[in-house]
Amino acid sequence: MSDLILDNIKTPEDIRNLSLGEMEALCAEVRQILIGTVSKTGGHLASNLGVVELTVALHKVFSSPLDKIVWDVGHQSYAHKILTGRKDKFSTLRTKGGIAGFPKPSESEHDAFIAGHSSTSISAAFGLSQAKSLKGEPGYVIAVIGDGALTGGMAYEALNNAGRSHDNLIVVLNDNKMSISKNVGSIARYLAVIRSEPTYYKFKTGVERLVKKIPLVGNHLRDFLLRSKSAIKNSLYHSNWFEEMGFSYLGPLDGHDLHKLVSVLETAKKMRRPALVHINTVKGKGYEYAERNPKDFHGVPGFDISTGEYNQSKNSFSYFFGETLTELAEKDKRICAITAAMTEGTGLTAFREKFRNRFYDVGIAEQHAVTFGAALAVSGLLPVFAVYSSFLQRSVDQVIHDAAIMNVKLVLAVDRAGIVGEDGETHQGVFDAAFLNSIPNMTIYSPASYEQLHRDLYTAIYEEKGLAAVRYPRGAQGKRRIDFQGPYTVFGEGPYAFVTYGRMIQNVLEAQEELLKEGIGFRTVCLDRIKPIDSMAVSAVLDCQQVIFVEEGVQAGGIGEHYGALLAEGGFRGQYRIRAVGDVFLGQASVCESFQDCGLDALSLCGLAKEAVQNG
Amino acid sequence: MSDLILDNIKTPEDIRNLSLGEMEALCAEVRQILIGTVSKTGGHLASNLGVVELTVALHKVFSSPLDKIVWDVGHQSYAHKILTGRKDKFSTLRTKGGIAGFPKPSESEHDAFIAGHSSTSISAAFGLSQAKSLKGEPGYVIAVIGDGALTGGMAYEALNNAGRSHDNLIVVLNDNKMSISKNVGSIARYLAVIRSEPTYYKFKTGVERLVKKIPLVGNHLRDFLLRSKSAIKNSLYHSNWFEEMGFSYLGPLDGHDLHKLVSVLETAKKMRRPALVHINTVKGKGYEYAERNPKDFHGVPGFDISTGEYNQSKNSFSYFFGETLTELAEKDKRICAITAAMTEGTGLTAFREKFRNRFYDVGIAEQHAVTFGAALAVSGLLPVFAVYSSFLQRSVDQVIHDAAIMNVKLVLAVDRAGIVGEDGETHQGVFDAAFLNSIPNMTIYSPASYEQLHRDLYTAIYEEKGLAAVRYPRGAQGKRRIDFQGPYTVFGEGPYAFVTYGRMIQNVLEAQEELLKEGIGFRTVCLDRIKPIDSMAVSAVLDCQQVIFVEEGVQAGGIGEHYGALLAEGGFRGQYRIRAVGDVFLGQASVCESFQDCGLDALSLCGLAKEAVQNG
Repeated sequence: MSDLILDNIKTPEDIRNLSLGEMEALCAEVRQILIGTVSKTGGHLASNLGVVELTVALHKVFSSPLDKIVWDVGHQSYAHKILTGRKDKFSTLRTKGGIAGFPKPSESEHDAFIAGHSSTSISAAFGLSQAKSLKGEPGYVIAVIGDGALTGGMAYEALNNAGRSHDNLIVVLNDNKMSISKNVGSIARYLAVIRSEPTYYKFKTGVERLVKKIPLVGNHLRDFLLRSKSAIKNSLYHSNWFEEMGFSYLGPLDGHDLHKLVSVLETAKKMRRPALVHINTVKGKGYEYAERNPKDFHGVPGFDISTGEYNQSKNSFSYFFGETLTELAEKDKRICAITAAMTEGTGLTAFREKFRNRFYDVGIAEQHAVTFGAALAVSGLLPVFAVYSSFLQRSVDQVIHDAAIMNVKLVLAVDRAGIVGEDGETHQGVFDAAFLNSIPNMTIYSPASYEQLHRDLYTAIYEEKGLAAVRYPRGAQGKRRIDFQGPYTVFGEGPYAFVTYGRMIQNVLEAQEELLKEGIGFRTVCLDRIKPIDSMAVSAVLDCQQVIFVEEGVQAGGIGEHYGALLAEGGFRGQYRIRAVGDVFLGQASVCESFQDCGLDALSLCGLAKEAVQNG
Repeated sequence: MSDLILDNIKTPEDIRNLSLGEMEALCAEVRQILIGTVSKTGGHLASNLGVVELTVALHKVFSSPLDKIVWDVGHQSYAHKILTGRKDKFSTLRTKGGIAGFPKPSESEHDAFIAGHSSTSISAAFGLSQAKSLKGEPGYVIAVIGDGALTGGMAYEALNNAGRSHDNLIVVLNDNKMSISKNVGSIARYLAVIRSEPTYYKFKTGVERLVKKIPLVGNHLRDFLLRSKSAIKNSLYHSNWFEEMGFSYLGPLDGHDLHKLVSVLETAKKMRRPALVHINTVKGKGYEYAERNPKDFHGVPGFDISTGEYNQSKNSFSYFFGETLTELAEKDKRICAITAAMTEGTGLTAFREKFRNRFYDVGIAEQHAVTFGAALAVSGLLPVFAVYSSFLQRSVDQVIHDAAIMNVKLVLAVDRAGIVGEDGETHQGVFDAAFLNSIPNMTIYSPASYEQLHRDLYTAIYEEKGLAAVRYPRGAQGKRRIDFQGPYTVFGEGPYAFVTYGRMIQNVLEAQEELLKEGIGFRTVCLDRIKPIDSMAVSAVLDCQQVIFVEEGVQAGGIGEHYGALLAEGGFRGQYRIRAVGDVFLGQASVCESFQDCGLDALSLCGLAKEAVQNG
């Protein structure tokens, strides 16, 4: 028999019978596991520590999976995972085959919808609640969304639609005054205003209690008042923006007070129409180092629990990008930096400190970022939008419509391009090269080293006439020091050829060396500029019997297929093969494991090359 | 000497000296040109008729191009074009080489930013105003945005950013209670509430007048009150959502009253901080048929001015799609239809009338539409999102993240896929095939006839296990009746081959016939399912000496390049060529003209084929 309450929580139903004291103890136990596991595996810590009480309260009041909880962004779903039958496997967090760092319906029936990108939860929850209404099914749908995610336009699109429904839909606004770092913009300011009205919720429940006392009709009248947007109600209840959007507003309240949480969720449940519950939480709650520096503990590698220390590596493309841009901006006041709530992640902390008036954190608003940047560019400034590859997917239309057609001098600094590892499917940067390659007027660089990143960024800012992207992977440059020249570089010689770009050159050169040991001569062409491809970078292999294109990105529509078309145009008559990411989503794993799974590691490339040479 | 005031308007500066009466007469003259020209060329009418007074008032109060006017969506910029030196060329509207139907900076210095897609204007205007602030340049930036465009999340992202600035930025909310048809959602309801408070603006100007009377300090105090969000101001002025977002709110007022318009714009100008001017206009104003049926006169072909009649063709893929989906929905109540403010354009009018509870017009919110649809799908419903190809660019991330990873049974009905003609660069549907092809779990159909569309839609809804897209062009099916079978069809025989998909088969078969007359035998493979491509559709041409892939879409990253990779994998040793849309944006022209420009017409294809055969 264990003394831990958690050991008796086999399913979330087990939470429903706990007393308040037991729930409080449970929260402490969950925090222990969170800190213990993330200190080893790395992952998202501060956001998860902030929603422990909320998670317990949700499972106390609602019945998952009949009731459906949709976690926005999803990186705050760890406590939910621990409480929904995944405690024992939780130590495998973010490892290959283990528990995912984000909600994953294929992992558990309690994960109602996928999430990894921000601001999607209300759309998803409204779809689930509409389906319940259409099908006449019972139950509630709850979206948990942070104030940061509320800066994304998609959340607003969803509020605009959901507010006019009559669904059992509850939006919990988890307000921690942060996106990933400090939240920005008018919405943040607005929330600060309503946060400062702590009497509001009390006033409302006070009115409710009063109304309930009216004999006989009490309950009906109360229900009427709660459910309608009547004139009486509007005069009794102070109205705010969420109410204008069609939601009954409840809050704000302390999101770490289990008693209040349970009470407000019960109230929301009774409304039987869209309600918004506004709670205040502390990011990092319960672990002093995370409370003190929530943005450092947003996403962390493993750390020392007792000291809160971890290896804050400056050896990364992101850091180097930030340093380079800051250095260029010192000499040129036209340079502006734009980020969508990713100041730290994209290495722009120093830039922000030094050039506050030319630094734009636009919130989680990648669409706005691109069009805003394009307008800065047409005005003669030199904007650089630093964005993760997978989040750039949010601005494909703006890149085409607002930047590429006018061919403005906007630079996209595409971070986390390629395989990202532990974050898995939702965060893979394997599409940007294919997407950007299809867009006219676009120039794309894919540096493989810091030195090359420096040169490409300089070229994109000062030598390109229009829209350009510089894309680089997560983490550090490869161990092999490589001397690159110009838009492409040729290494070695032989009757066969590898063609590649980006950090994949490390694996390819390793394969090339191995093959040479066995007497098989491969030359390697490494592209730096992947659009447009230099014609000499094509003619460099036209005489080869075998050409193998190696790509850390999707094959379908990728650079390899485009290179193949250029070869065909050039009259190439040898055999052409592409080794790239196949037509599947890559799950979480280490980057090395993913390379192996895709056959992109040096050994697999050797195997492919030998097979090509033998059958060619 | 002309009696027309318009003849004396050479530049917008000439408007600044006009009296109120002259301005009114000018508006009548502009309306005449609008109706006369659009009745011949086709184009956007109702929205342009609604902003004639606004356009004249803007040019009366502001000095373009020093002051910059950004028109949202841009199809309401015709009056602006007529008044900014393009009157004489206006009859060339929407024709090749003529005046564009949307703002185009390369056409005039008075077109401050490109627009064709919705909800971008505030982002662009804020970029322009920030650039002015950073560079210390004088002048104002004005964004004109409709209430429909305000349903797009990007507009909200921009408000959230711009409201905290101190820029000379004025947002004119042109409220006509419409998107393209009736506007939807909570925002629309909210605007209706503030529209019904006509005393508000009067109250404010009344307060202003009062404050101004305070001797000596009057002007300073007034400026202070206007510019600050002080407690005094909040108590004097009723606050609304736009003010919470950081904008000074002025309105609502009659957008056809030139005197009031000029007055409110002068007031906004004096504020020297972000202001929102809310005007009420009537879509179609001044032309009775358009006032009566604004949605029919949103985008029209040529029409008879005296009767308002035009050819409402039912001979289109859009109409046929709507009929088919309605027919399927009659038998299956799981089928739901989703549109992003394009009920009429996508042929869903009948569906909306018959199945109101399963019909979702989400507003101009393509991002929300996909995630919402994905959630309906995971709940066991059968949602179909009908969307124009170029607007689907807005939801690339949601298609990947919320639909494809979970492989939900969502169907994308992609209308206006391929070359769209007169709308030009911003609306071309030439990217969707390339984008969608890169996404794992996606199945893509590209029917070339109504019959094939019917079969593909049925297959996508009932036989596919997951995410599928059915894409079809604007307008009618081709004249040639073609008998298609299965995922691909082979026509004719010969040692050479064409491969193509979609309506391009019409031109290809014509070329094939011409070549045969000259004794050159081409077989043609027409793909219906373009992802995944049937392996037999590849092996069908492996023995050919020459293979030419013909594609109505971008070459880079397109289906042709993918097919080439499949050929190479299959050991193809002949010559492979791709004829597709090159690495440029296609401007406005008729579809036929664009085919010729791209070498996609039958004659050009014959030429290419002969060259291939001779040099092969």
